[in-house]
Amino acid sequence: MGMVDVTEKPVIKREAEAGGRILLSPDTIQQIQKGHIKKGDPFQVAEIAAMNATKQTHLLIPHCHQIALDAVNVTFQVSKDSIEAGCLVRAQARTGVEMEALVGVSSALNALWDMVKYLEKNEEGQYPNTRITDIRVLRKTKELSVPIICLLLVGMTMLLFFQSEEDVHSKIAGGKKMEIKITSSAFKPGGMIPVQYTCDGQDVSPPLSWMG
Amino acid sequence: MGMVDVTEKPVIKREAEAGGRILLSPDTIQQIQKGHIKKGDPFQVAEIAAMNATKQTHLLIPHCHQIALDAVNVTFQVSKDSIEAGCLVRAQARTGVEMEALVGVSSALNALWDMVKYLEKNEEGQYPNTRITDIRVLRKTKELSVPIICLLLVGMTMLLFFQSEEDVHSKIAGGKKMEIKITSSAFKPGGMIPVQYTCDGQDVSPPLSWMG
Amino acid sequence: MGMVDVTEKPVIKREAEAGGRILLSPDTIQQIQKGHIKKGDPFQVAEIAAMNATKQTHLLIPHCHQIALDAVNVTFQVSKDSIEAGCLVRAQARTGVEMEALVGVSSALNALWDMVKYLEKNEEGQYPNTRITDIRVLRKTKELSVPIICLLLVGMTMLLFFQSEEDVHSKIAGGKKMEIKITSSAFKPGGMIPVQYTCDGQDVSPPLSWMG
Amino acid sequence: MGMVDVTEKPVIKREAEAGGRILLSPDTIQQIQKGHIKKGDPFQVAEIAAMNATKQTHLLIPHCHQIALDAVNVTFQVSKDSIEAGCLVRAQARTGVEMEALVGVSSALNALWDMVKYLEKNEEGQYPNTRITDIRVLRKTKELSVPIICLLLVGMTMLLFFQSEEDVHSKIAGGKKMEIKITSSAFKPGGMIPVQYTCDGQDVSPPLSWMG
Amino acid sequence: MGMVDVTEKPVIKREAEAGGRILLSPDTIQQIQKGHIKKGDPFQVAEIAAMNATKQTHLLIPHCHQIALDAVNVTFQVSKDSIEAGCLVRAQARTGVEMEALVGVSSALNALWDMVKYLEKNEEGQYPNTRITDIRVLRKTKELSVPIICLLLVGMTMLLFFQSEEDVHSKIAGGKKMEIKITSSAFKPGGMIPVQYTCDGQDVSPPLSWMG
Amino acid sequence: MGMVDVTEKPVIKREAEAGGRILLSPDTIQQIQKGHIKKGDPFQVAEIAAMNATKQTHLLIPHCHQIALDAVNVTFQVSKDSIEAGCLVRAQARTGVEMEALVGVSSALNALWDMVKYLEKNEEGQYPNTRITDIRVLRKTKELSVPIICLLLVGMTMLLFFQSEEDVHSKIAGGKKMEIKITSSAFKPGGMIPVQYTCDGQDVSPPLSWMG
Repeated sequence: MGMVDVTEKPVIKREAEAGGRILLSPDTIQQIQKGHIKKGDPFQVAEIAAMNATKQTHLLIPHCHQIALDAVNVTFQVSKDSIEAGCLVRAQARTGVEMEALVGVSSALNALWDMVKYLEKNEEGQYPNTRITDIRVLRKTKELSVPIICLLLVGMTMLLFFQSEEDVHSKIAGGKKMEIKITSSAFKPGGMIPVQYTCDGQDVSPPLSWMG
Repeated sequence: MGMVDVTEKPVIKREAEAGGRILLSPDTIQQIQKGHIKKGDPFQVAEIAAMNATKQTHLLIPHCHQIALDAVNVTFQVSKDSIEAGCLVRAQARTGVEMEALVGVSSALNALWDMVKYLEKNEEGQYPNTRITDIRVLRKTKELSVPIICLLLVGMTMLLFFQSEEDVHSKIAGGKKMEIKITSSAFKPGGMIPVQYTCDGQDVSPPLSWMG
Repeated sequence: MGMVDVTEKPVIKREAEAGGRILLSPDTIQQIQKGHIKKGDPFQVAEIAAMNATKQTHLLIPHCHQIALDAVNVTFQVSKDSIEAGCLVRAQARTGVEMEALVGVSSALNALWDMVKYLEKNEEGQYPNTRITDIRVLRKTKELSVPIICLLLVGMTMLLFFQSEEDVHSKIAGGKKMEIKITSSAFKPGGMIPVQYTCDGQDVSPPLSWMG
Repeated sequence: MGMVDVTEKPVIKREAEAGGRILLSPDTIQQIQKGHIKKGDPFQVAEIAAMNATKQTHLLIPHCHQIALDAVNVTFQVSKDSIEAGCLVRAQARTGVEMEALVGVSSALNALWDMVKYLEKNEEGQYPNTRITDIRVLRKTKELSVPIICLLLVGMTMLLFFQSEEDVHSKIAGGKKMEIKITSSAFKPGGMIPVQYTCDGQDVSPPLSWMG
Repeated sequence: MGMVDVTEKPVIKREAEAGGRILLSPDTIQQIQKGHIKKGDPFQVAEIAAMNATKQTHLLIPHCHQIALDAVNVTFQVSKDSIEAGCLVRAQARTGVEMEALVGVSSALNALWDMVKYLEKNEEGQYPNTRITDIRVLRKTKELSVPIICLLLVGMTMLLFFQSEEDVHSKIAGGKKMEIKITSSAFKPGGMIPVQYTCDGQDVSPPLSWMG
Repeated sequence: MGMVDVTEKPVIKREAEAGGRILLSPDTIQQIQKGHIKKGDPFQVAEIAAMNATKQTHLLIPHCHQIALDAVNVTFQVSKDSIEAGCLVRAQARTGVEMEALVGVSSALNALWDMVKYLEKNEEGQYPNTRITDIRVLRKTKELSVPIICLLLVGMTMLLFFQSEEDVHSKIAGGKKMEIKITSSAFKPGGMIPVQYTCDGQDVSPPLSWMG
C-alpha cells in the first residue's frame, strides 16, 4: 500500500497530451469570440488553471509522484458549439505524465465553464446543455534524451570496471602522474566505492564527507 | 477585473450535484469488481480525491470564492463498460457551489483512471479506449435555511425600526426597567448605530471596543 | 461515502486542546535552552508549523471540513529530557475542532524534531532515543456563544410564526404605518417566504433578486 | 504564542485596498501596450496571481486567519515607465483584511515582472532598472452590514431577556396557544439555555441533539 | 538564517522509515476489523493521508527542502488495543528524508483517529483513552545508486583532465577524425568550459545557447 | 500558450538574490529591537514566511516551473526607520530562480508588516507611513557545477561515438573479455540504443525493461 516505488526506473524524457471538449450554446461561443465575457478572456484563465493544476497533480491524484514539469502547453480550438482543449506536458522523470495532462485538461475545461456559467444557466439556474466530454489521452511517449543516453552508456561502461579485480587509469598531466585505482573486490553493495585518487603517488581522494 | 463581489448576497443554503462517466474496458471493470486493483480500492481513492479537490476549488478555478462545504457526497455506479461518478456538495454561502461539484467529479474520474491505468494501457503504452465523458451539473438548488429565514425576517423587521425617528423598547424584568433606545436620525451608513441601553436609567451599553 | 453532512448542525463555539511530548537527549535540551540551535529558535519555528498545519487540516485529514479558526494557541513546557507541546484551537463551526488541535500538535512536535535532528542523530545517522509520544486530546468543549444563543432564540420564535395562518406585525414610525405580513399557508419548503412589506399600504418589499 | 484570538470579535464587513508599482523600461511598457508579450496578457495573468494569492494569505503570512473573501478587485494603471497595481478585497470577518490586499498586490507585481522579465534583463541577465516599489495600504475600513446590525440589535435585545427571572412569549396561531418560556435563573454559561417550547401546554422543544 | 544549503551535496539514494502507534479501545479495533467504520476503510484513508502529507513535508516543516519521493509505503499492524503504522519513503536527493517519513506516519495516525473518533469519544465528548504514541525513526539509510556511482566516477575522472594544460581526445570514425580539445588553462570557475569539438578539422561545437 | 518549454536546457547551478525594504516608524523599530513585539520575533516569522513562499513560487506565479531549491537564505538589516530584507536562493535547474527570490523577499516584507501592524496603524486604523519599497533582483548567476560539467563533457564525447558506424570498447578483466559494441547505424531518434554487452562472447546486456 502506498505510492509505487520507481526508485530503479531511470529518469527519461516523458511527454503526454490529453484532450477534452466542452459543449456550449452557440450564443455563448459567439460572446466568447466577441471578447464579451464579463470576467475576462476565458482562454487565458483556462490556460492558467491548467498550468496551475498540472503542477499540483501529486496533491490531487493520491498515488501520483511529484514531477517537476519542463513544459505545459495548453491549446484551444473553437467550433460552433464546443471548445476543444488540449494539454501537453513534458518532464524528465521516472514515471509517465499522462495524469498531469488529464488533470490539466480537466481544469482548463472546468475553468471555461466557470467563465461562461452566467450565459449557460437557464432561468431555473440549471445547465441543461453544458457538458464536458471526451477527455482522453491523445498520446504518451517516452524517449531517452541525449544526456540520459550518455549517462546510461557511461553507467554500463562503468559496470564493466566493477567486474575487474582492480582497475587503474593513469594520465600524465601538467607533468604530474594522476591515477585512479578502483578495487572492485573490496566493494560491497550499499557501501562506499573503494576508489583511490593519487597525484604523483600522493593521495588526493575527495573527502568522504562530500558524500552526504 | 477580479473575483466577483458577493458582499451583498445573503448566505443561503446551496447545493449542487455533478455527474460524469469514465469508459473502461470490461476486463478492467471485472478486475475492479473482484477487488484486484493493485494500488487499492479505486472507489475509496476516488472518493478522497473528490473530497480533497472540492475543498481546493477556489485555488483551482481562479474566479471561485472560498466556500466552506458542509457536505460532500461521492457515489459510483458500475456498469459493464463504464463507471458513473456523482458528486453532491452542500454549503451555506453567498454564491453557488456547482464548480465545487464539477471539480469533485472531475477529480474522482481522474483518480479512477490513475488507479486502473496499468490495465487500460495497450502495448504501446497508449489508452485507445479510455475516456472521461458526460461531465454535467445534474442539479443546482438554493434554499433559505430556517436560521437564514429567521435572520432575514428579523433583519427586515429591524429595517422598519430604522425608519422611525426614535424607537424605544422597554421591559420590566426582575423589578428593573430595561430600555433600548435607537435613534435612527443620528445613524449614518458605515457609522456606529446610536443605540443606548439602560437599566433603571443607568447606561449599560456594551463597550464599543466589542465592535472590533 | 464522502464528507459527513453537517448542514443542519448549528454554528456554535468550539474549542479543543491537544498535547504531546517529544523525548530528547538532555544535551539537546540544554542546547535549546542556551539558544544554540543552528537553524534558529525551535519554539518559534514549531509554533508557526503548528499554526500553518491547523489551517490546512481539511487538506491533510481527508474527511475534515474546512473550518476557519478564531484562535490557535501553541505552548511548550521544557523538562530535563522532553518537551511537552500544547495546541489549543477555537472556532465557530458546525463540527468539532479536535482534529485541528491534533494536527497542530503533531506538526509542532515534528518541527521540533527537525530543528534538533543534527544533535539527536548518532554516528550511524540513526535516532535511537528520539520519540514523539503521548499525543492526546486534553479537552474538547462546545458552547453556545451569545450571538448564537440569540440567533437560536430568534429562530425558534420565528418557527412559531410559521405555524399561524397569517401573521401581521405593524408599527407606526415617523408617522407612517409599516406592516410585515407573513402568509405561512402559502409557504412551501425550498420556496420563497411569502412575506409582504408595506408602508402606508404601499408595497416596499425588498427585490427578490437580493436573495441570490 | 500562536494566532491571536478573535473569538469575541463580531463578524463585520471589512474592506482594504493596497497599491504598489513596478518600474519597467519604456520599451517594455510599449511591448505590453501593443499586446506583444510572449507568454500572454500580463494583466490577466497578474490579476489571477493576485486573486490566487489573496485566497492563500493565511498560508503565506503565518499569523493570518483564514478569511473567505467576498470580493477581490485588481486594477492596473499604465504610465510611461511604470505600472501601478491596486488590489481591493472585501470580507465579512472577525479581523481586518489589509494583509490579503498586500499579498494580492505583491503577487500581481511579481507576476508582471515574470511576464516581462525577458525584456527587462540586460545582456548579463541582470535587472538593473526593474523595481517594485511603493507597496502600501491605501485604505482600510470596517462597517456593520445590515444583517450584522440586525443580528447585533437582536442579540442586545435578547440580553435583556436574560436579565429577567422568567420570560414568556405567547401567541395564538391556528387556534393553538404557542408559548416560549425562558428561565434565565436556571441558565449557566457554557450550558444549554433553559428554554421550553409548548403548544397548547404540550412540550414541543426541539431535540437537544440538534445542538450538535 | 533560512533553509540549509545543500548545493554541494551529491544526489544519492535516501530511505527512511518511521513508525508510530495509536491506542484505541478494543471495541473500536473490533469494529475496524469487521469493516463497520461509518466513513469507510480507515486504512485506505490513512494510507492516502500519509502519501499526501509526505508530499507536502516541505510546506509543513519550515526548514525542509522540496524532495520528490520515489516511493511511499504505508503499513498497518493491528493488535488487540492499538494499531501500529509504518511509513517508508525513498528518494534520490541531496538531503535525508526522515522528516517525510515522520510527517507521513503522523498524518496516518491522525487520520485513523478521525475515522474512529465517533467510537472513541465518551459521553462528554472526550477521548480519555485514545493516544498516539511512540512515533520514531526506525531506520534511515543512504546509498549510492548505480547511476550515481557512475556519475561520481566519471566526475572524478574528469577532474583529472582539468589538471592538464591541454587534453585532446581523438577518434577515427566513419573515416572522419573527431577531436575534443579541452584547454583547462583557459577555464575559470563559473565560466564556460573551453572545449572545442572538431570533425576533420571543422568546428562542430554545440552552440553555447544550448547552455541556457 | 502555457509554461515555457525548458526540456532542452541543461540542469545547471542557478542562484538569485533579491532585496527589498519596509519603511516603519522609528518607534516600531525600537519595539522590534527591544524584542517587545506581541506576536513574537518578527525576523524569525518573516524568515519562515520567505522560505515557505519560495517553495510555492510555482503556485503563486502562474508561468513558473517547479524548482526544488537547494538553499534559501534570508537576511535582515535594521536601520532607524526601515528594515532591509534579502532573500538568496540556489537551485540546480533548467531555468532561473529570480522569481523565487522575489517571492521570498515579498513574503518576508509582508510578514514583517503583519507582525508590527498594531504599532503602525494610526487612530483611524490606517497606515499612513508604512511602505514596502525597492524590491529588486540584486544578482542572478548561473554556473556549471562540477557534476554538470562532467556530464556535459561525457555527453559530448558520447556524441562522437554516435557518428561512427560501429564502436567497440573491450577490456580484459578478471581473465574475462568484456565488450561493449554500439551500432550507431541501427540507432534512430526516440528508439532504443543498439548497444550489446558481451562477456567472453556471451550476451550480458541489461534487460530492456530496466528502461522504464
